[in-house]
Amino acid sequence: MRMTDLIAKKRDGQALTTDEIRYMITDYTAGIIPDYQMSSMCMAILLRGMNDREVLDLTLAMQHSGDVLDLSPIQGIKADKHSTGGVGDKTSLVLCPMVAACGLKIAKMSGRGLGHTGGTIDKLESFPGFSTALTEEQFFENVNRHGIAIMGQTANLVPADKKLYALRDVTGTVPSIPLIVSSIMSKKLASGADVIVLDVKCGDGSFMKTAEDAEELARNLTRIGRLAGKKCAAIITDMDQPLGYAVGNALEVREAIAVLKGEEEGDLLRLCLALGSCMLTEAGYASDHDAAERMLLDAVKSGRALDKLAEMVTAQGGDASAVYRPELLPAAPVICEVPSPRAGTVSRIHAEAVGLVSMKLGGGRATKEDVIDPRVGVVLHKKLGDAVAEGESLASIHAADEKSAAEAARQLLDCYELCDGEVVRPPFIRKILRGDV
Amino acid sequence: MRMTDLIAKKRDGQALTTDEIRYMITDYTAGIIPDYQMSSMCMAILLRGMNDREVLDLTLAMQHSGDVLDLSPIQGIKADKHSTGGVGDKTSLVLCPMVAACGLKIAKMSGRGLGHTGGTIDKLESFPGFSTALTEEQFFENVNRHGIAIMGQTANLVPADKKLYALRDVTGTVPSIPLIVSSIMSKKLASGADVIVLDVKCGDGSFMKTAEDAEELARNLTRIGRLAGKKCAAIITDMDQPLGYAVGNALEVREAIAVLKGEEEGDLLRLCLALGSCMLTEAGYASDHDAAERMLLDAVKSGRALDKLAEMVTAQGGDASAVYRPELLPAAPVICEVPSPRAGTVSRIHAEAVGLVSMKLGGGRATKEDVIDPRVGVVLHKKLGDAVAEGESLASIHAADEKSAAEAARQLLDCYELCDGEVVRPPFIRKILRGDV
Repeated sequence: MRMTDLIAKKRDGQALTTDEIRYMITDYTAGIIPDYQMSSMCMAILLRGMNDREVLDLTLAMQHSGDVLDLSPIQGIKADKHSTGGVGDKTSLVLCPMVAACGLKIAKMSGRGLGHTGGTIDKLESFPGFSTALTEEQFFENVNRHGIAIMGQTANLVPADKKLYALRDVTGTVPSIPLIVSSIMSKKLASGADVIVLDVKCGDGSFMKTAEDAEELARNLTRIGRLAGKKCAAIITDMDQPLGYAVGNALEVREAIAVLKGEEEGDLLRLCLALGSCMLTEAGYASDHDAAERMLLDAVKSGRALDKLAEMVTAQGGDASAVYRPELLPAAPVICEVPSPRAGTVSRIHAEAVGLVSMKLGGGRATKEDVIDPRVGVVLHKKLGDAVAEGESLASIHAADEKSAAEAARQLLDCYELCDGEVVRPPFIRKILRGDV
Repeated sequence: MRMTDLIAKKRDGQALTTDEIRYMITDYTAGIIPDYQMSSMCMAILLRGMNDREVLDLTLAMQHSGDVLDLSPIQGIKADKHSTGGVGDKTSLVLCPMVAACGLKIAKMSGRGLGHTGGTIDKLESFPGFSTALTEEQFFENVNRHGIAIMGQTANLVPADKKLYALRDVTGTVPSIPLIVSSIMSKKLASGADVIVLDVKCGDGSFMKTAEDAEELARNLTRIGRLAGKKCAAIITDMDQPLGYAVGNALEVREAIAVLKGEEEGDLLRLCLALGSCMLTEAGYASDHDAAERMLLDAVKSGRALDKLAEMVTAQGGDASAVYRPELLPAAPVICEVPSPRAGTVSRIHAEAVGLVSMKLGGGRATKEDVIDPRVGVVLHKKLGDAVAEGESLASIHAADEKSAAEAARQLLDCYELCDGEVVRPPFIRKILRGDV
């Protein structure tokens, strides 16, 4: 088999066979097929497409390029969640304890964030001592005992994707549904869960700029997941502004705790209820969406969801005191407000720009080596459609020093657009794609 | 400027600016832009296309990636010819002396062949002592004095194309009109001639499999040549069988001599008359095609064309005796016939396969280091549409030894297809695209 022939085949719009796709992924991962051939193939795939069978083959070939986690030592049904990413996305911090409190097993592998804000692991490390460096045995045991554990990604999880993603990132081949689907689903399949729920963002701050593109991606993700034998559902949500109010690691943990306590009812809670109910119904733990939502809300009201977060933090070596006393979380020495220059209604918040402000404050990584400052970030007070008076605070800046605070306050003003009159916000949850779709 | 952004632009069907194309070629040639980005770009260009302005910019950027020959020290109008390649193509050996004998200046850079058969230089080296290693000054002086000279390609002629072609060859990005046109025309422009005539082959043994594809390529080549300020014409010819009869270096020289002597009237002469008359009319040396053909035929009949070949060989250090006594050309020690297994009509000759037989005999290079044996090759006796009796010879094999001769004879049989009844051959010259088209 010659890679050049396979490229020509895809270039001419033909489908690749299962063997051809396996050969391509195996030899690319092994360094036998060079980057310059793979990038040409990626562009051909992007512009010519792939049928479902090809995408499934590609996903499975990538899944098996490295370690595949076998979760069978864990009793019960294991659920996992994936988000296509977004600014202020602390969904896992809320969703996972909530669902675990309902009896579904959460055995989640998570990565660190590279970009605007930290990843789930970075956020959880706001709890002193918390570690995700678990062995497989510890991981299984924790899930069996507590119903929930979050582990750092093993170095050898889908090496094909690590290599391929880095290549796609610099060769203009990121926005291809077959390549996005195989990248996401290969990692989810390698992580071993039975139920996979996907949060696909659309809008300015995300990958898929339109609701149509996001829905197409969501449909493809769930279809391939099901073809691979998993229970799958997807939710399409709006990312035209940051999710919730806090952007920054400890600040997001604090917001998550507030939601788990039932103190806050907004987009974040709505999203967690939607994702959680998909998980519970797909797993057969609830007969329908309404029943599932009732279970989840009960877990919040009863305090079991919050307790589950504390239980997980403790089980993974962390000091969970802050779960009940959030004022113990790392706090920034400088907090300053960002007053609105005029009265009006918030018509737009540039999510990516807000993420960048948080990153510059020290809340995200520009390079892999950067150390995250858990204390810093931004807390928005005004969101889309909110009215604001002149001089009223749009947001608070949490900074390590006065200088970076002043700089961030200036930049944050540019993230906001104000208008006169009312602003009609599109629905936050655009669509839910369940098993029967 | 970032290459990733340019790839994304082309991927999304947008046109690249002049500056973007220059940046891309300059930095790729300098090794700043890596192969994996350029191959992705090539696939995007292949599948998305380029407009004329882009192809012209690409051609000019490539032309200026290395040395550009300034032919102004040569008096008169300089003409050059390019062929998209083919088996048994000895056109330059006939055409160049013929046209030079009519007063047009031939200042030709030529490459060595890699593949089935030798290139023009390899063929001319059948004359003992002949060398194309001329300095620019010698080259100019020879053309000024003799009206013709053939020089080996300078090492630094369009380095962008050397790099790009090698990359395209292994990334499935060869068959793209914009990339083919810029590759061919950048070299022709860098070689400095005023009149450029292109021989575009179509059919089995060539790049462009159909007459339509070949015509599209030809139209693009001439259009870009003219946009670059050159006089340009193109001829589309059939390559469903080798051109002429001989395939192999000294054997092809012998055939060329026969045509220049007026001893042979077939496709090869027809092609040289067509290309030559395009050259003469584009240069303004003849008022129309008929007048040009008369000039060319007169150069043959008078012996001036043959003398011009001898003059060039002598001027470049070669022993030209063989021009007048072809039996002095290097000859193979073993010649054997290939008898037809049955009576019939030749319905097909696989040109590429015949080229391969000649290469295996030693007439071509599999790698750059291979040394060519000028003596060996194949002489076809039967061509498309010819009737053959059982046992009658289809071709002669000229070999270095009995073993390779027997092997080649076996392989040559597989190159022929015979049928019963008549075979209607498509016209050899499919189309002539002149300046007024």
